[in-house]
Amino acid sequence: MTEQEIFHHVDLTLLRPDATREEILRLAGEGMERGAASICIPPFFVREAAAYCANRLPVCTVIGFPNGYATDRVKCFEAADAVKNGAREIDMVIAVGLLRGGQDEALLRQINEVKSACGEAILKVIVETCLLTKEEKARVLSIVDASDAEFIKTSTGFGSGGAVLEDVIQWKKAIRHGTKIKAAGGIRSFSSAEAFLIAGADRIGASRLLRDA
Amino acid sequence: MTEQEIFHHVDLTLLRPDATREEILRLAGEGMERGAASICIPPFFVREAAAYCANRLPVCTVIGFPNGYATDRVKCFEAADAVKNGAREIDMVIAVGLLRGGQDEALLRQINEVKSACGEAILKVIVETCLLTKEEKARVLSIVDASDAEFIKTSTGFGSGGAVLEDVIQWKKAIRHGTKIKAAGGIRSFSSAEAFLIAGADRIGASRLLRDA
Repeated sequence: MTEQEIFHHVDLTLLRPDATREEILRLAGEGMERGAASICIPPFFVREAAAYCANRLPVCTVIGFPNGYATDRVKCFEAADAVKNGAREIDMVIAVGLLRGGQDEALLRQINEVKSACGEAILKVIVETCLLTKEEKARVLSIVDASDAEFIKTSTGFGSGGAVLEDVIQWKKAIRHGTKIKAAGGIRSFSSAEAFLIAGADRIGASRLLRDA
Repeated sequence: MTEQEIFHHVDLTLLRPDATREEILRLAGEGMERGAASICIPPFFVREAAAYCANRLPVCTVIGFPNGYATDRVKCFEAADAVKNGAREIDMVIAVGLLRGGQDEALLRQINEVKSACGEAILKVIVETCLLTKEEKARVLSIVDASDAEFIKTSTGFGSGGAVLEDVIQWKKAIRHGTKIKAAGGIRSFSSAEAFLIAGADRIGASRLLRDA
């Protein structure tokens, strides 16, 4: 794949707590110039970035991020607020405690409620694979695949580990209902991004992509 | 100070993303038994923990946590939701980008709006000192001290660094309007907790306190 083809799948990401508006607007400029899939930025900057990008580049933001333990009501409010401010994609972290505790139906309900709050906006469900066992990774895929969300996403980028190729390959095999995969966390080169796309990811989350030396 | 005296100042804390309800209720039991100042737990578990603790132990939770870049509207909604669920103390992370960008008045307004949403609940303002310069640490103290919040809190525990004694000492000297200090992040022993209390902290955030070897 060419660098440009790869870039069309990239959610260009800046989620550092101390990111400034200047850095966000610079990222938006780069995203538009290079034809990224979206820019993924903090909720605080969505309104301004969406106005700046107009309809040239979708703005993606994060909800319940990165720990996932906001209440359902708060996650829905956050999602609706972000969409109102101009976000067209929402990356939401699950309550890992629900999965861990076997409360699969409560988790499915949470995902569907947030999707309702998103309306037309795309919902990506972040499951933070570095916290999960192999069994939990398989189970959460089936939950997300049964939900109304469009994507399952590997990682927040704030955990102890990022995207792992084997997880993407296993998920791709197990998907029955068309759920797409976003690989994020630790992807820093074009060759790494390409490997994840070949493994079955449809989107890549990355703050930048370097050429191989 | 005795261990018991120290414990009266401790917000006993469990904020791991994969914490389960069993762990939270165990923490609540320990907090009640040892006379902690509060338990500090994820929003998701506040309602159940508050019912479990009844009026024997205040429940504290976190807002805009740990990155601080939720919108003002969302932070206010989160705070009001948490109070409705039974939280009596709210630890809220500031939008560090506002401080960094010199938007001090917007930051003061955000703090006061969240305090309004808290009502009677105590508001602690987390400034994540590990991200700040010396000048920013002094400036944010004066902003919080001018606000309606009750506490300034050093750290989320999720950043690259935790509480630092010198910051607490400098803040204590600079406070003009009775703001209290909570030191959190990396405090793991009774002797360390005692040092922060002597330096001028009124509260300690810690997941456990060990005796010196």
